[in-house]
Amino acid sequence: MSAILAIGPYTDAERTAFAAELKPAFVGTRDELAALDAATCEAVKAIAYKGHHAFGGAEMDRFANLGLIANFGVGYDAIDVDAASARGIKVTNTPDVLNDDVADLAIAMWLMQGREMRQAEAWVRDGSWGEKGPVPLNRKVSGGTVGIMGMGRIGRDIADRLAAFKCDIHYHARSEKETPGWTYHADPVDLARAVDFLFVALVGGPATEKYVSKEVIAALGDKGVIINISRGSTIDEEAMLDALETGALAGAGLDVFVGEPHLNPRFQKLDNVVLQPHQGSGTHETRAAMAKLQRDNVAAHLAGRELLTPVN
Amino acid sequence: MSAILAIGPYTDAERTAFAAELKPAFVGTRDELAALDAATCEAVKAIAYKGHHAFGGAEMDRFANLGLIANFGVGYDAIDVDAASARGIKVTNTPDVLNDDVADLAIAMWLMQGREMRQAEAWVRDGSWGEKGPVPLNRKVSGGTVGIMGMGRIGRDIADRLAAFKCDIHYHARSEKETPGWTYHADPVDLARAVDFLFVALVGGPATEKYVSKEVIAALGDKGVIINISRGSTIDEEAMLDALETGALAGAGLDVFVGEPHLNPRFQKLDNVVLQPHQGSGTHETRAAMAKLQRDNVAAHLAGRELLTPVN
Repeated sequence: MSAILAIGPYTDAERTAFAAELKPAFVGTRDELAALDAATCEAVKAIAYKGHHAFGGAEMDRFANLGLIANFGVGYDAIDVDAASARGIKVTNTPDVLNDDVADLAIAMWLMQGREMRQAEAWVRDGSWGEKGPVPLNRKVSGGTVGIMGMGRIGRDIADRLAAFKCDIHYHARSEKETPGWTYHADPVDLARAVDFLFVALVGGPATEKYVSKEVIAALGDKGVIINISRGSTIDEEAMLDALETGALAGAGLDVFVGEPHLNPRFQKLDNVVLQPHQGSGTHETRAAMAKLQRDNVAAHLAGRELLTPVN
Repeated sequence: MSAILAIGPYTDAERTAFAAELKPAFVGTRDELAALDAATCEAVKAIAYKGHHAFGGAEMDRFANLGLIANFGVGYDAIDVDAASARGIKVTNTPDVLNDDVADLAIAMWLMQGREMRQAEAWVRDGSWGEKGPVPLNRKVSGGTVGIMGMGRIGRDIADRLAAFKCDIHYHARSEKETPGWTYHADPVDLARAVDFLFVALVGGPATEKYVSKEVIAALGDKGVIINISRGSTIDEEAMLDALETGALAGAGLDVFVGEPHLNPRFQKLDNVVLQPHQGSGTHETRAAMAKLQRDNVAAHLAGRELLTPVN
């Protein structure tokens, strides 16, 4: 019996570090979770959660002594926080330690899409360069007019990088922020109308579902490019696919998808998109820092100390 | 007979703009150049040069009234400037207008190599994500220790971007520059020993041939990554290939190659490299600005005005 239940696809390195520090029980799949016996559930005081499957009130009610759900990741939309709060269960996440990696990937997708680097790399690797001559010209991205949708910590890290690329920076958020003179738009469609490149850095969850709507996509226009490192749910994916297929939208760089990892197969047929497998925080260094922060929250809860990064 | 001879692979858009402004004669290939008759050569006062084939004293001596060779590109190592100076021929290039694009591509190759984005994109496109699970973790690049080899205008634009990625910046140049506290190394091997990521932004030509030597490559070590947007000649390519094949060097992002576009086929067999077809300045916007600057230099020469961007 362990007071800690670690749920999800932990890597070997994460399991080893976890086991050395806190000796949790591990549950890799939802079937294994469903099969836990009553005595094991009774012993659990803290759950270390990793993954994107929903974890709601019904799941929480199996654990009578559960006091903490420590999420692996900054986005905790898989966890029903209202249900947790109603049961006196605290929730933590792993903010900040992953901001740099996610912002890096956003910038990289922006550059890779505009400069058609996937196509250019294929041109070199298949010998076209030597046989057919130079690769077709592509699009300048630095100095462009860019919009950030959602100016939280990650949005800010993206904007700070874009400033070094000499971009004209606009943003939309619930309220105006202190910035170095960037342009605030209270309305998301107004933001889209003003910019060529739109970076989506919203939080996930029901409140932001299809926040990048058909109207926002139309306002970006045929020079518009969407970069999304938030959640697939934040964009009206069908409207975006329609626009990408017809050229009503110039392109996209996407790390997240509705139904991932089983994305809509229309994406793979497109040549004007960069497609990444939700790897925003997927570096050895950052995943280790996220796992450490998750363990530290668990340890703090068990020792009765203040949680490091509570969300409720 | 035209006073202007435009040599090289000009695009249709460039030819149209050139013809409208200056009515040059166009010569697309070296065979066409060799076939020009004496009267045509006699009329030529300015050559607008585009390409990487050598243009030396023997070529210049065919044009008795040649006063200017206006190069398309910032790097003019194809043109024998000493031979031109000895004949009283001025040479111009197209600096600055391409700095942003070249710096963008350098940053993009750095991110794409470290975050293994080519591999990750293939993982999405071939369905591996849905079938096999998450892509393997890769490497954090922001916050890294980076070196710039050659702190001219492009090196500076690369460094300014890297500063926004929170990197610790070191550099080597002929002399120490005014910087925001970046670390100067008088010796290139010392620079390589101090950093994990080396950006090569040297000028081309005989003086920098294999400047990134076997010793520099060894000093970078097995976490080292080389990003080259200068010229293939600036790196000891055989030593780099050996190190990339054995893992003595972690990776590379390369836009330029010895003998390009016919690069050493050992490159295409590597998985730890990003390979781009010398497209640093290859955007519609920047190529148009380069062509305009070249034409403006030609027009200034013919009108007896001061050249905009002379190099001798």
